[in-house]
Amino acid sequence: MRALPVLQLFFLATLAATTHGSFELDIADQIIHLLRPKTRSGDSHVDDNVSCLSWRLGVETHNIIDWTTVPAACEGYAGDYLLGHQYRKDSEVVAHEAYLYAESLNLTDDGNNLWIFDIDETSLSNLPYFADHGFGVEVLNTTSYGAWMLEGIAPALPESLKLYKKLLALGIKVAFLTGRGESIRNVTETNLMNAGYDSWEKLILKDSSYSGDTAVMYKSSERKKLEGSGYKIIGNIGDQWSDLLGTNVGNRTFKLPNPMYYAS
Amino acid sequence: MRALPVLQLFFLATLAATTHGSFELDIADQIIHLLRPKTRSGDSHVDDNVSCLSWRLGVETHNIIDWTTVPAACEGYAGDYLLGHQYRKDSEVVAHEAYLYAESLNLTDDGNNLWIFDIDETSLSNLPYFADHGFGVEVLNTTSYGAWMLEGIAPALPESLKLYKKLLALGIKVAFLTGRGESIRNVTETNLMNAGYDSWEKLILKDSSYSGDTAVMYKSSERKKLEGSGYKIIGNIGDQWSDLLGTNVGNRTFKLPNPMYYAS
Repeated sequence: MRALPVLQLFFLATLAATTHGSFELDIADQIIHLLRPKTRSGDSHVDDNVSCLSWRLGVETHNIIDWTTVPAACEGYAGDYLLGHQYRKDSEVVAHEAYLYAESLNLTDDGNNLWIFDIDETSLSNLPYFADHGFGVEVLNTTSYGAWMLEGIAPALPESLKLYKKLLALGIKVAFLTGRGESIRNVTETNLMNAGYDSWEKLILKDSSYSGDTAVMYKSSERKKLEGSGYKIIGNIGDQWSDLLGTNVGNRTFKLPNPMYYAS
Repeated sequence: MRALPVLQLFFLATLAATTHGSFELDIADQIIHLLRPKTRSGDSHVDDNVSCLSWRLGVETHNIIDWTTVPAACEGYAGDYLLGHQYRKDSEVVAHEAYLYAESLNLTDDGNNLWIFDIDETSLSNLPYFADHGFGVEVLNTTSYGAWMLEGIAPALPESLKLYKKLLALGIKVAFLTGRGESIRNVTETNLMNAGYDSWEKLILKDSSYSGDTAVMYKSSERKKLEGSGYKIIGNIGDQWSDLLGTNVGNRTFKLPNPMYYAS
């Protein structure tokens, strides 16, 4: 019987970042943690509320699809989960598996190895917004959410930022592929950089002329273009199944948790 | 804000089964429940053990793959989960979503609508065996596990049996597709019938001549044959991602929980 690899605090032991990079990671950790004292402190409801746990598992495994809001009965549960340790630990396990996979490839750096990162709830966290708007229980207000995005202050999801830096250290290039529109390219660039993502091979935003119906179709089409131009998509990480399904999904995909909203 | 559909006890309210069928369901419930007093009583460790929860989520979302045993540190957690309410509720949510989907199709019964059921940990539960063998912490002993299968006494997973009966009532045909070998066809048939699965369109077991490497390849190949002979695979339910990935997977797939073993 072997010990659980995911329990190893590998990030702390092996973090291959510059002093500058480490500072950014610390800041990212602080920003996302700052929210905690404002609401519930932990996971106290998780054990009591079997059904909200089952709902979340159903969402994360793509059994429950096309949902519009978090069930009202699960608002407390969702808040506890997202501001507590479990969301962070769940994200850490995903990022850890992604890194173990990338490292295991022993890639030759031919300049074409590409990893796709989604942006919202993957690279950047909109938890500060959703914490003020019912953690997904409220129908998304596109006006106030749009205003939040224009502030450009979304913190990094710390586990994704750590993964990003470790992939770059392995010689893997990163492309951000997002459903955000071209109209907010500048603020998105600034936000990514301020959050610690200081370089990228591609930042692909949705052109206003794009007429496809779903995120699956849009992202498949953009990934196909990338592969057509010579990149090898060795990995793909996102919080929505629509980031990971369709065509040209990459050699392996990784699903981060998001029990706040669903994008088809 | 709408109430959580998965909380509705729809099975009890709408169970469209004969008296005979209801009796079988009750028996199935009792058999799987009988195990509880033998070990831990509930979910007491779930909340304490953030990392085991994250490990299980990683497994269920296909982020953690190719694993051989449940982490030793999670044995208590796994037992509590599998013998407590959470595993049953998680399974119920999956079966409920599957039924809602099937019902929403408003199918015309042309005799070709087919739903694929995996067998082990989907239609039948080997929990009585695994409860005596560390819930997946021990490396699988193929001799004792084989002997267990030959007993032919595995109970139904109650939620799957309920789904099976409701799909039949909608005029949908059922095919069992399993990695079990042809050599145990007879005992598998007897076990299925004794557990309450009293009819099927196909029972597909693996021929000893099959030389494919993985369950994904084998099951894709068998599903392709089914579609080639005119069936429409409208749904597909299994506990392993290898039941649900590959080709000809069906119009929609449903992943039941299984934190005990991994089959690629």
